[in-house]
Amino acid sequence: MCQLLGMNCNTPTDILFSFEGFHRRGGLTDHHADGWGIAFFEGHGVRMFNDDRPSVDSPVAELVRRYPIKSENVIAHIRKATQGTVNLANAHPFIREMWGCYWVFAHNGNLIDYAPAKGQYYRPVGDTDSEAAFCQLLETLRQEFDEQPDEDTLFERINAIATEIRAFGVFNFMLSNGEALYVHCSTQLHYIVRQAPFTNAHLVDDDISVDFSTVTTPKDRVAVIATQPLTDNEHWTPLAANQLVLFRDGAPQRMSNNPEFRLTY
Amino acid sequence: MCQLLGMNCNTPTDILFSFEGFHRRGGLTDHHADGWGIAFFEGHGVRMFNDDRPSVDSPVAELVRRYPIKSENVIAHIRKATQGTVNLANAHPFIREMWGCYWVFAHNGNLIDYAPAKGQYYRPVGDTDSEAAFCQLLETLRQEFDEQPDEDTLFERINAIATEIRAFGVFNFMLSNGEALYVHCSTQLHYIVRQAPFTNAHLVDDDISVDFSTVTTPKDRVAVIATQPLTDNEHWTPLAANQLVLFRDGAPQRMSNNPEFRLTY
Repeated sequence: MCQLLGMNCNTPTDILFSFEGFHRRGGLTDHHADGWGIAFFEGHGVRMFNDDRPSVDSPVAELVRRYPIKSENVIAHIRKATQGTVNLANAHPFIREMWGCYWVFAHNGNLIDYAPAKGQYYRPVGDTDSEAAFCQLLETLRQEFDEQPDEDTLFERINAIATEIRAFGVFNFMLSNGEALYVHCSTQLHYIVRQAPFTNAHLVDDDISVDFSTVTTPKDRVAVIATQPLTDNEHWTPLAANQLVLFRDGAPQRMSNNPEFRLTY
Repeated sequence: MCQLLGMNCNTPTDILFSFEGFHRRGGLTDHHADGWGIAFFEGHGVRMFNDDRPSVDSPVAELVRRYPIKSENVIAHIRKATQGTVNLANAHPFIREMWGCYWVFAHNGNLIDYAPAKGQYYRPVGDTDSEAAFCQLLETLRQEFDEQPDEDTLFERINAIATEIRAFGVFNFMLSNGEALYVHCSTQLHYIVRQAPFTNAHLVDDDISVDFSTVTTPKDRVAVIATQPLTDNEHWTPLAANQLVLFRDGAPQRMSNNPEFRLTY
């Protein structure tokens, strides 16, 4: 299975610290060595980097580790191939345009005997279950709405489509249009919200710490979501099974299993 | 105006030599400093790099200069903004999926009072004339064909759509789906085909030479297409005004103003 990393912030923030630990899981501290990718939204633009080499020795990962790209929504993925060959067309994240916005998607899991009908608007290029699911998700939304619906409607529909697709297997995913980050948990995903007062954080995957109080302003708020916690001295909250969470402005704003939930940070 | 660079090969080839000269035109040897981007097809997968910093001092360009990515179809672009602000959403190349393939597009020129109707299948994310033209091109094709038509039909239709769009202004563009590279010339584009016997080539933009005979096999064939010739000791062929050329396997295969043209290499 694969590893997912997401970040959603109320101000453009770099992901260097989290990526430092995360990229080691691609061939060094864990066995996810079949390529990797990362997408950074900057407004409605997207910067994508991917490589079919393991992230731990990828020159592209080396660039991402050194270049502090500031973004409000980031999705990263390290691949352990379960379906589809190891090639660039099968590397997550995947990207499509819908309603005049780019949508980016990455998946951790395995969908069994999953073969959605060919879409009118969206078709996979590679041969993974993940890209097929992404295309079906967008296809269903696009068939239903000619323009982007309001947030309540969109959240409810994404949750309903995720419910259908996860009947085929494990379906942890992250999805963003640059405005919000949708995170769906089948089996394992954890998140943390960092905000003032910022403290020190220490990576699980290497002996590296950062004192966030020295690199933030009091107004900053950053949510980091990962398959497994990236730090060992902070409290990460596990998502519940079959839970869809919408992150915006650096915090969860909607949770599918708790319709009354609204931001309390 | 912008600078375009394309490469089409019969075997995966790196573009390091051509990019070495080309990237200097983004802020050093020429005034095209409003961002840049490059797309490499590997089979049907695409690796995209872009940056809103000038290519001459972009860390991403530095990576591309050092990482010998082998590709059969490459499209690169250095931007001098004529329409649209300088931001990532407006950076070429643009990418969309059609008929289960990625299509990549970059444009040099300026389309005046160009405002195509909102598409059903493809809509721009940024606010450039270039992305609007790309979307209209794909929209027209997709409305007409549910699956990719044969090469003759596709070439004829792309040529017809390009003819309509260039009524609005200068429309030099490059377009690829990973199988072929379509190059349309309004005002200026030049190409060269390199094949055995390979010789020495020397860059216009820097005192750098390469002896291609040492880095190729006798079967290799590579077409390089650029706004202006990149080398000063080889013969580059200018494309004619309003000419669409299809490159495949490292050589021109179809030319719009010469329907009888077939590969003679």
